[in-house]
Amino acid sequence: MQPKQNIIHLPVYQPGKPIEDVKRELGLTDVVKLASNENPFGSSEKAKEAIIAELSNTSIYPDGASVSLTADIAAKFDIGTDQIIFGTGSDEVILMIARAFLTTGDETIMADETFSQYKHNAVVENATIIEVPLKDGKHDLPAMLARVTDKTKIVWICNPNNPTGTIVHKEELEQFMSQVPPHVLVVLDEAYCEYIEDEQYPDGFEFLKRYKNLVLLRTFSKIYGLASLRIGFGVGRPETIRYINQVREPFNTSRFGQAAAKAALADEEFVAYCREQNRRGIQYITGEFERLGLSYFPAYGNFIMFDTKFPSAQVFDGLLRRGVISRARWSKYPTHVRITVGSQEQNEKFISSLEQVLQELAVQV
Amino acid sequence: MQPKQNIIHLPVYQPGKPIEDVKRELGLTDVVKLASNENPFGSSEKAKEAIIAELSNTSIYPDGASVSLTADIAAKFDIGTDQIIFGTGSDEVILMIARAFLTTGDETIMADETFSQYKHNAVVENATIIEVPLKDGKHDLPAMLARVTDKTKIVWICNPNNPTGTIVHKEELEQFMSQVPPHVLVVLDEAYCEYIEDEQYPDGFEFLKRYKNLVLLRTFSKIYGLASLRIGFGVGRPETIRYINQVREPFNTSRFGQAAAKAALADEEFVAYCREQNRRGIQYITGEFERLGLSYFPAYGNFIMFDTKFPSAQVFDGLLRRGVISRARWSKYPTHVRITVGSQEQNEKFISSLEQVLQELAVQV
Repeated sequence: MQPKQNIIHLPVYQPGKPIEDVKRELGLTDVVKLASNENPFGSSEKAKEAIIAELSNTSIYPDGASVSLTADIAAKFDIGTDQIIFGTGSDEVILMIARAFLTTGDETIMADETFSQYKHNAVVENATIIEVPLKDGKHDLPAMLARVTDKTKIVWICNPNNPTGTIVHKEELEQFMSQVPPHVLVVLDEAYCEYIEDEQYPDGFEFLKRYKNLVLLRTFSKIYGLASLRIGFGVGRPETIRYINQVREPFNTSRFGQAAAKAALADEEFVAYCREQNRRGIQYITGEFERLGLSYFPAYGNFIMFDTKFPSAQVFDGLLRRGVISRARWSKYPTHVRITVGSQEQNEKFISSLEQVLQELAVQV
Repeated sequence: MQPKQNIIHLPVYQPGKPIEDVKRELGLTDVVKLASNENPFGSSEKAKEAIIAELSNTSIYPDGASVSLTADIAAKFDIGTDQIIFGTGSDEVILMIARAFLTTGDETIMADETFSQYKHNAVVENATIIEVPLKDGKHDLPAMLARVTDKTKIVWICNPNNPTGTIVHKEELEQFMSQVPPHVLVVLDEAYCEYIEDEQYPDGFEFLKRYKNLVLLRTFSKIYGLASLRIGFGVGRPETIRYINQVREPFNTSRFGQAAAKAALADEEFVAYCREQNRRGIQYITGEFERLGLSYFPAYGNFIMFDTKFPSAQVFDGLLRRGVISRARWSKYPTHVRITVGSQEQNEKFISSLEQVLQELAVQV
């Protein structure tokens, strides 16, 4: 009874520590989790109402084809209903793309510090992973392009990149897309796109009109505040979506996820509020970083990666003891910590805790 | 941009028709769906309360390790917490097992008319499918055993079998398990086990104590009435579960699914009520079948497959026009229809509709 040899030594995903665990382990009552880029403002009230409205249907399977939600997304983004596929978070769309396209001997290209699920799923499919170093925390698209061969099946671009938060600019993406051969599928992960107002940030839908070999990833887990319900989607040309759909489970997303996503999509006011609060949060936190003499990567999503100048595990532990859960231990960035932009109160708690931790560590040196 | 060649021509899963579609298409107001083996009594009220209690956590990721629900299931069935893995329905556990164990050149054995997802996932993994004919609607375990080779990786046993509803008896399973070589993983799908009181029905957990190469599949979609939320689980030896977990997405099940499942698991009264109502429903429907001179497979789950003696598509259409959604077009059983055991009212509507349809078809012959 032997599994595939390539999966045996796969590392297990390390999620952000849950608040309850930290409270219990450290005997704290006031803990903020700024580790998983969750929305500090919850979700739209309309999404909660939609969940309540589904309570009479708990025993009924969801609509496997998500017809109603598909129609709303198609209308919102002016695309065909046959261009959309849902997953349990964009995580599952990544899984489905890998499962549909990658097999032994195929090559797939990604940054050397990016969202872990591209690599994870490519390893499961036994593809050859080509990791291209980030340059100043940014995707190096020319270097990625240079690694494309006849065997390349998928290039993954996380925009903004998780964990660094940097973005690929319009012209850079245009340069890349115009040169990448059509046999290569480019996956543009835009999980945090709704937070971004920068004019240099590319609109994936515009690129999709011109390039057949592109798939966009979107999620309801971030600005829409529905991480609990696991729903995200992929957008591509109909033929690409049809292939991905071949490996989709019939009922992969939940009835509650579909209903809440539909309501959340319609509540543009909530989205605008979160975007504005996030912009202010970034302003506040980066202002404080400057006061503290800390460098950071330019932040576009709802998180910021900064250089603590100490081993990141020490800063992580110090923050944790003060009730702030962050994210650290990135192999490429051993002194960096990633922090989610929280509410103003949470951001202030983070900054004052960080200041204490850094002082404490400075004394110890 | 080419996907795996083996997935291109996979058939797309045909779910039971949704009630709303039937109402709209046929201009009906009173429609009952007896097509997807959903629980006609909904779910436990406690599960609904658990969903409401999670409303303040919509933006928070679920516990990826499902620690709390795992503990409850481990306690209930007296197994280790490292013996359990969750999926978005047992569907996803099937996917994960196939993805972890099957690859090109591997063989996998299943019945020729059984739950479609075993074959679907095995095809995606490019395994060689060996379908062994059901005998009188029952798994032919000796014939399945005879097809085991050195290349066999997984044998799938659906107990009760979907769509026929028949069960494999304790002694038959014992005969099979004692002879199947240890390199073969046996997956025992017990999605409907909570409905069954027959003493000849094997207890998967008993077998798991004695046989290492066994995985059980359980679901909250049937008697627990949580099909909307997509949650099921697999149970096996720790080493088997660890391998399957290697291909699991970090946050595959939802916070709402975990919370509702935990509450549903504890409400034994609701489960007992559904079991009793289902028993009466089977009694009523099979009694009517006998009155109508229709043969049927012995039913153990919450569904019955019966022989209409007409092409099943005609009976399906006739039932549909009368507002009863059933399931038909099984290639091995061209005159059989599968019907979910509903509430007494639904069962009566089904029987009276069926009687009309059969009379209508008899006149046409």
